[in-house]
Amino acid sequence: MRQATRLFRYQTQGPGFTMITRDLDAWIREVGAREGLLSLLCRHTSASLTIQENADPDVRVDLAAAFDRLAPRDAHYVHHLEGPDDMPAHIRTVLSGATLSIPVMAERMALGTWQGVYLWEHRDAPHRREIAAHLSYE
Amino acid sequence: MRQATRLFRYQTQGPGFTMITRDLDAWIREVGAREGLLSLLCRHTSASLTIQENADPDVRVDLAAAFDRLAPRDAHYVHHLEGPDDMPAHIRTVLSGATLSIPVMAERMALGTWQGVYLWEHRDAPHRREIAAHLSYE
Amino acid sequence: MRQATRLFRYQTQGPGFTMITRDLDAWIREVGAREGLLSLLCRHTSASLTIQENADPDVRVDLAAAFDRLAPRDAHYVHHLEGPDDMPAHIRTVLSGATLSIPVMAERMALGTWQGVYLWEHRDAPHRREIAAHLSYE
Repeated sequence: MRQATRLFRYQTQGPGFTMITRDLDAWIREVGAREGLLSLLCRHTSASLTIQENADPDVRVDLAAAFDRLAPRDAHYVHHLEGPDDMPAHIRTVLSGATLSIPVMAERMALGTWQGVYLWEHRDAPHRREIAAHLSYE
Repeated sequence: MRQATRLFRYQTQGPGFTMITRDLDAWIREVGAREGLLSLLCRHTSASLTIQENADPDVRVDLAAAFDRLAPRDAHYVHHLEGPDDMPAHIRTVLSGATLSIPVMAERMALGTWQGVYLWEHRDAPHRREIAAHLSYE
Repeated sequence: MRQATRLFRYQTQGPGFTMITRDLDAWIREVGAREGLLSLLCRHTSASLTIQENADPDVRVDLAAAFDRLAPRDAHYVHHLEGPDDMPAHIRTVLSGATLSIPVMAERMALGTWQGVYLWEHRDAPHRREIAAHLSYE
């Protein structure tokens, strides 16, 4: 087995989902991996990674609304110096998760038909975000 | 180090937990892995993976009830064409997670005494589900 | 590529966060890993792993309060023999997650500036906790 590492960089536009599926599969092909494991870390505490439906965009609208309810802006947080959107963003990041590990088969991620990999921005303002990626493969 | 990949297939019976611990450990022995890393991806957006207590089944009853409250059926979702159980299933999948990475020691997953690995079905109807598995090992 | 495994043991002091970032990076250096993947499993069903802000401790105060609301103690759980803090601890563990996979670059975890890795105790009483770690590296 061999390995490769890389940083992916994205500019987000405030709250929402950036699909990164194609970038990841392109890197897998570029490296020449047939089978292996792709591991991802979102290097931030107010943006996360998730695997969700890539077809109907309404799913992501409802998902964002659900996370608004689970971690509301007006919950009297102790930590509020960075704005009312900061602490909810930390909570949503913990709930959604910072790391993913995805088997690679036949030169691509072994995702299901309806699955996409998303970087999920939880802050109000646009941010530059980095994802650290590790690929072990043959 | 070497690697192996495999798809596990399960038929679920509607909402609930399917314990897959034994199948995974059996595969590890079959491959002949002494030490390594087992990585799993549930290839769906309305079923998830979780590690939870394998002893008292009441824990899983309460866990399902908690997720019913966290992602209720009647939250006026935009996405509802696939039924009232569909969008809650997506949210529960994000909260529980689609991937796991489990160290292997002494020819089995290094789980704690009370831990089991579960496929968690979030839809009302029975479904055929697939889990992509990757094992790197010596 | 080569691999190494290890158990990390911690004594918790009841509910709260134990930062384990330095222990993990020390092990990576000890093993002599330049690049690779660190995978972690918390071997318990009432304590979890999370990556969160390492700067302002108020973030962790708010995070704990948020999880108190998401999985309250008084939700009439079926499973209550082990005390009113037990079932909420299971739910919080599922929400936060039991496993992490973190790319290693330049002889340390490729964490962002503000990220720390935490063992999160969800039970009221102090507990001895174990984390199984796997490192694949060059």
